[in-house]
Amino acid sequence: MTVAALRVRYEETDAMGVVYHANYLRYFEVARVELLRERGVSYAEMERHGYRLAVVEVHAEYRAPARFDDDLRVSCRVERVRSTRIDLGYEVKAGERLLCTGTTVLACLGPDGRPARLPDDVSGALEVTG
Amino acid sequence: MTVAALRVRYEETDAMGVVYHANYLRYFEVARVELLRERGVSYAEMERHGYRLAVVEVHAEYRAPARFDDDLRVSCRVERVRSTRIDLGYEVKAGERLLCTGTTVLACLGPDGRPARLPDDVSGALEVTG
Amino acid sequence: MTVAALRVRYEETDAMGVVYHANYLRYFEVARVELLRERGVSYAEMERHGYRLAVVEVHAEYRAPARFDDDLRVSCRVERVRSTRIDLGYEVKAGERLLCTGTTVLACLGPDGRPARLPDDVSGALEVTG
Amino acid sequence: MTVAALRVRYEETDAMGVVYHANYLRYFEVARVELLRERGVSYAEMERHGYRLAVVEVHAEYRAPARFDDDLRVSCRVERVRSTRIDLGYEVKAGERLLCTGTTVLACLGPDGRPARLPDDVSGALEVTG
Repeated sequence: MTVAALRVRYEETDAMGVVYHANYLRYFEVARVELLRERGVSYAEMERHGYRLAVVEVHAEYRAPARFDDDLRVSCRVERVRSTRIDLGYEVKAGERLLCTGTTVLACLGPDGRPARLPDDVSGALEVTG
Repeated sequence: MTVAALRVRYEETDAMGVVYHANYLRYFEVARVELLRERGVSYAEMERHGYRLAVVEVHAEYRAPARFDDDLRVSCRVERVRSTRIDLGYEVKAGERLLCTGTTVLACLGPDGRPARLPDDVSGALEVTG
Repeated sequence: MTVAALRVRYEETDAMGVVYHANYLRYFEVARVELLRERGVSYAEMERHGYRLAVVEVHAEYRAPARFDDDLRVSCRVERVRSTRIDLGYEVKAGERLLCTGTTVLACLGPDGRPARLPDDVSGALEVTG
Repeated sequence: MTVAALRVRYEETDAMGVVYHANYLRYFEVARVELLRERGVSYAEMERHGYRLAVVEVHAEYRAPARFDDDLRVSCRVERVRSTRIDLGYEVKAGERLLCTGTTVLACLGPDGRPARLPDDVSGALEVTG
């Protein structure tokens, strides 16, 4: 499991005074990129080789709001690695308070833009427990 | 069912050359606000009376990408109205091509910021078939 | 002069309850793309031919705030066309109330990503008065 | 001068493959909030006392693009403190490469939403050299 730390930016809030719900998907991505990096996979490098990870499904549940300048911790965990897809799970916390949970399904796209098997180094890196 | 028309803005795309996945949640909201308006409910007015509709759950599936300047049609349909919650369903299409489907659960918050029964005029307006 | 109509989306507001200042640059772009279209230039088409218009300078002054669901009118006017650059001016209004004014300088980038002369059809279309 | 470090998020890029120009205004804000914090001013706290700093003017010049995952350093410097306004200057760099420079004028708004003198502790904190 990877934990990314971030602080809520003013632009991420909305007129309710709290973080706009779609922005949690952006927080998920920050943790996702960090998880890949920790496993030795640079997503930017992967793209330069023509491979992309496209979000094909997302689910999020919101339990409590975050506000401007809150310090958040976003955890990302590998749930399952399939030949062409990766399932990840997320939690967003402010201190001990759980704000949001979610899951994403990522599909690997190859140089031709079509679904492709995950490169071996990527699937290998992700299959490690945790 | 309400259908909102919108055109993809440049800022809504990402380095993959397609609309960033979190932005579909924003498109859902455009259609949601339009559905409320068509049913005679002004969300802005509702907020001035101290009531808010907070997204507490969202699910989206992505089938095909949208690109800059595409003309999209975002439909929103009432799935279910409960005492304090509303379930809505969405489809995003470019012409006949289905790009994305999704659902949201909205919770009504009262003037004290706590879960509240939907105002009668809102639940009445939404319970109409379609 | 081109005028684009748009309605403020919830996500465009911030915790002050008004439109976040950076979002006016996005409104400018909506009007800019519309101006090009009205002059017979499709920016999407231009990109497919390898040409891009990159914002190299922006200036904005904010006079009054816009709020969620406000109907805005964003005007865009050609100030000056140079061999590789275009100067545009903008006004954002809600009814008769002037909310924001701004200018942008766009630089034309060619297929190699370097500064390039504006394609003749583009500079021709923009040099028309107004 | 304050320097904030941040890494480009995927959602901040656009279909040109680089950071969308309006997002630099968001980077400016990250550095601005950090500068206030370093000077002992919590902007979130300031808002709880009813005072706000609204951006009333912004200028930015773009020299070179930033890409996904780039490590950026955003510096913010106090240019001038007036009774009701603050002028700040910014630079965004990737390593030694200067990507963007800018300035903002912030106006202090009081609890009634009207222009107000900067609270003494804020103006005092900002008048320190640097």
